[in-house]
Amino acid sequence: MTDRSPLGIIAGAGRFPLAIAETAKAQGRPVFAILLKGIAGPELEGFPHVRVGIGRFGAMIRAAKGAGCRDLVFIGSLVRPNLWTTIPDLAAIRIAPQMIRLYRGGDDHLLRGIAGLFEREGFRLLAAQDVAPELLMPVGPLARRLPSAEDAADIAHGLGAIAALGPYDVGQGMVIGARRIVAVEGAEGTDGMLERCAAMRQSRRLNWTSDTGILVKAPKPGQDRRLDLPAIGPATVERAAQAKLRGIAVVAGSTLMVDAQEMIRIADGHGLFLVGVDPAGRAAHV
Amino acid sequence: MTDRSPLGIIAGAGRFPLAIAETAKAQGRPVFAILLKGIAGPELEGFPHVRVGIGRFGAMIRAAKGAGCRDLVFIGSLVRPNLWTTIPDLAAIRIAPQMIRLYRGGDDHLLRGIAGLFEREGFRLLAAQDVAPELLMPVGPLARRLPSAEDAADIAHGLGAIAALGPYDVGQGMVIGARRIVAVEGAEGTDGMLERCAAMRQSRRLNWTSDTGILVKAPKPGQDRRLDLPAIGPATVERAAQAKLRGIAVVAGSTLMVDAQEMIRIADGHGLFLVGVDPAGRAAHV
Repeated sequence: MTDRSPLGIIAGAGRFPLAIAETAKAQGRPVFAILLKGIAGPELEGFPHVRVGIGRFGAMIRAAKGAGCRDLVFIGSLVRPNLWTTIPDLAAIRIAPQMIRLYRGGDDHLLRGIAGLFEREGFRLLAAQDVAPELLMPVGPLARRLPSAEDAADIAHGLGAIAALGPYDVGQGMVIGARRIVAVEGAEGTDGMLERCAAMRQSRRLNWTSDTGILVKAPKPGQDRRLDLPAIGPATVERAAQAKLRGIAVVAGSTLMVDAQEMIRIADGHGLFLVGVDPAGRAAHV
Repeated sequence: MTDRSPLGIIAGAGRFPLAIAETAKAQGRPVFAILLKGIAGPELEGFPHVRVGIGRFGAMIRAAKGAGCRDLVFIGSLVRPNLWTTIPDLAAIRIAPQMIRLYRGGDDHLLRGIAGLFEREGFRLLAAQDVAPELLMPVGPLARRLPSAEDAADIAHGLGAIAALGPYDVGQGMVIGARRIVAVEGAEGTDGMLERCAAMRQSRRLNWTSDTGILVKAPKPGQDRRLDLPAIGPATVERAAQAKLRGIAVVAGSTLMVDAQEMIRIADGHGLFLVGVDPAGRAAHV
């Protein structure tokens, strides 16, 4: 069934919010954008929109209701906000004790709690991939280079480590080469981790001689897929190339990709593989 | 029983090799130092010594036997050598296929394999803490500040995550605050991880407002305690302070510390806690 109510997009940074908005528009569905102040770019300003401070849940709820939204999508990257430096509004103050509990814990915990606030107001939370399934990484290789059997073993090892960290809400991404995990993603994010790997190669702290290492990304077990799937885009591939990695492996169907054609062009230009695998690391074509 | 044969110290970088040598000397035991070329500093040049390239196991074995060593201690930090850029000698070439297998895998795997080479030559491998037990972190707080109940919960959470990663031979150290793990140690090492945390605070990628975060370090399960215990020293405390952390918690009896008095002075100067805990995160005095 198609829903004629505007799709409310609560937008952080990056290119995903626009991708979602354009898909909805192409489907003939109106869009109402709630742009997070200081975080979302200008990309959605062509659509009906408001800008709201990140702590101001009451204002977001009022705006979404005023625009007639029933469905909301949370999309775009977000540096974890600091409860004490955002300007809370009444709704936020009402829920302050609960917010404080939310902030004690990892990002999943925080996001799930915020999602609950909107659901209690009667909104339906959609996953980005529900609106735009073409954003999901497919199974198998996208670029010309294919992972070797060696690579497949590294990918499985990395996915195992990510799964082991799942209960701790950290480590959605890792860099691994020759069965050795050399970098684990924390608050610095995937880009920061890849920049670190490039720097460690330059300083010879990481003294790999030839292209070695794979970026492996997977959703954390129990992660709310409506809120925070791992995501890759052209910048990810570019940074992986700068770190002289062999390729990128992400869990198919659980990783969002923006601008796939551009990603493939960059991967082929640098000779990287770019493969969607199952949670055990198997790729249909490998 | 005291052994009058010289203690062979295969020395990497940092202050631990000298601490071990001086303890042995104070115990009346002669020392013979095998300094790794390009890695070990001049600290041990006051003792009988040779400098040997890191790949040259045959030369190390000949030197140790020539000096009459029966016991060897591996000590000091080591940036993982690159098999292909070290100059292997005959012994190394003899064991090349085995070395290649060793290099496929994490550091534990590599170190254990190298240790095996020396044991097969009849040497006894001693742990640094066997020679100098005073280097082991004790249980309880060393500095004036004490961890809070909140801190204790973070410490336990971090130790759990380190244990979960154990089978993957990575993540001996983490930084965690308010139950959120923000950094996991990879090939960059503890210092690199702490510098990253300081940078993330400056860039507000990590937007903690007050002193928050704890450096937690623990040996990986199954780690060979003769070869690679976690270690802390004054530089660790200094970097933790620069990252505006609340303190440092390490597993007592399984963490080496160099220059404890200086560490405590720095910790007290910055108001950091410095506590030895059991593997579950409990400290006798907390």
